[in-house]
Amino acid sequence: MKPLKLNWRIVLVRPRNPLNIGASARALANFGLKDLAVVAPFEPTWKEARTSAVGADAVMARARAVPALIDAIGDSTLVIGTTTGARRKLDRELLPLPELAGELRRRRARGNAALLFGSEKTGLGNDEMSHCHLLVRIPTTEESPSMNLGQAVAVCAYELARAGLVDARTPHSPARRADIATAQSLEHLFERVEHVLEMSGYLQPLSREAMLLKLRRHLLELKLSTRGARVLGGVLAQVEWKLEQASPAGN
Amino acid sequence: MKPLKLNWRIVLVRPRNPLNIGASARALANFGLKDLAVVAPFEPTWKEARTSAVGADAVMARARAVPALIDAIGDSTLVIGTTTGARRKLDRELLPLPELAGELRRRRARGNAALLFGSEKTGLGNDEMSHCHLLVRIPTTEESPSMNLGQAVAVCAYELARAGLVDARTPHSPARRADIATAQSLEHLFERVEHVLEMSGYLQPLSREAMLLKLRRHLLELKLSTRGARVLGGVLAQVEWKLEQASPAGN
Repeated sequence: MKPLKLNWRIVLVRPRNPLNIGASARALANFGLKDLAVVAPFEPTWKEARTSAVGADAVMARARAVPALIDAIGDSTLVIGTTTGARRKLDRELLPLPELAGELRRRRARGNAALLFGSEKTGLGNDEMSHCHLLVRIPTTEESPSMNLGQAVAVCAYELARAGLVDARTPHSPARRADIATAQSLEHLFERVEHVLEMSGYLQPLSREAMLLKLRRHLLELKLSTRGARVLGGVLAQVEWKLEQASPAGN
Repeated sequence: MKPLKLNWRIVLVRPRNPLNIGASARALANFGLKDLAVVAPFEPTWKEARTSAVGADAVMARARAVPALIDAIGDSTLVIGTTTGARRKLDRELLPLPELAGELRRRRARGNAALLFGSEKTGLGNDEMSHCHLLVRIPTTEESPSMNLGQAVAVCAYELARAGLVDARTPHSPARRADIATAQSLEHLFERVEHVLEMSGYLQPLSREAMLLKLRRHLLELKLSTRGARVLGGVLAQVEWKLEQASPAGN
């Protein structure tokens, strides 16, 4: 099998317990991962986090807290969410973690990949999942599906290393040849889509939010290149302009 | 690949932090393992352990603390130790965890297997390792080899489940057809070996302990059947008797 190395960032979304941040950092260090981002931590006490980050000084020194998910994944070209799948309402396929490596090889994935973990209590929300190209499930039992956050990160980090998916030299590298559209550029595109649909009267108040989440996912599935995103953005800008012309004058 | 299912027991040797006992129990429950034993815990507070054993009530209800390692592995026919391998003085081969499944298939392993984890500070000691048929190493980085205990248990439990090695129905089953000598029967045999060597004047005060540890390992490598252990025990009993006859009268 051809080696497939990605530049991983592990992203903890709204973690509640600082000790889990430290434990996650330790697991990253154990398996050669270097890039940890924390979105809107419930208790942003890095000092407490450090007590459980044994042997992970370098990871902790690089780690940063950001206010929103897009700030953590903006430069990523592949976003993967983790979920227990206990909430059966998911309408998406869950990939068992041991099959992730095979799936990434099939997709010829490359570049900056982000792996997201939700909060201890609730996991990833629907909005967060709508940013994900893939959802993976750690194959836990039905009786006890929910893992401790630090342990879940350790298991995933082990699996990435075991499957030979970790580029040990470089973490997320923004300077990378950006042939695949980043999450940030797709988000800009998506905002434009939203605006166009708004002006077209396509979005209904009751279904609005669910519709937008679904659309964001469909946008991801297009697997746009940087160039493709730019072209589509141009098209949408033109439609936007036309709609603005057509709408009644005045704000 | 033919499925190979073993009846696993996870054994924590002298854990210092009760929260790690609970976290380990949780990881067992997550991956369908049922049997947890704790050898001489530093702080034997099951109540505190329970706070981190979320969703692992059944594992905790079965879990037990025992005073010595042999009490935890007596009915095991295969004993596997985990180590970071950071202490390079080890004169034994360390099997990378991802290769464990293949090795167990080669050995046609079956029955009761125990997987040992040492204390947070020191890992497994030489004496404890001398009880192990195999030593496995979680493939951590050289820079940060040492894992948190609960995370190490989670990674190993995941690997056993992933590789299809977990017999979800039965934990350690003492009633199992005992065609392979158990750790307890080998320990009895070993005590007899020690006594015979003692009387023969083979053991020298300075090298005594190291010699005995090495001999115990060689004994394991014989892979004795229950019957083989009984035959060898009989031979040793005869030698013992003869040596006692030959030694000067009186106690």
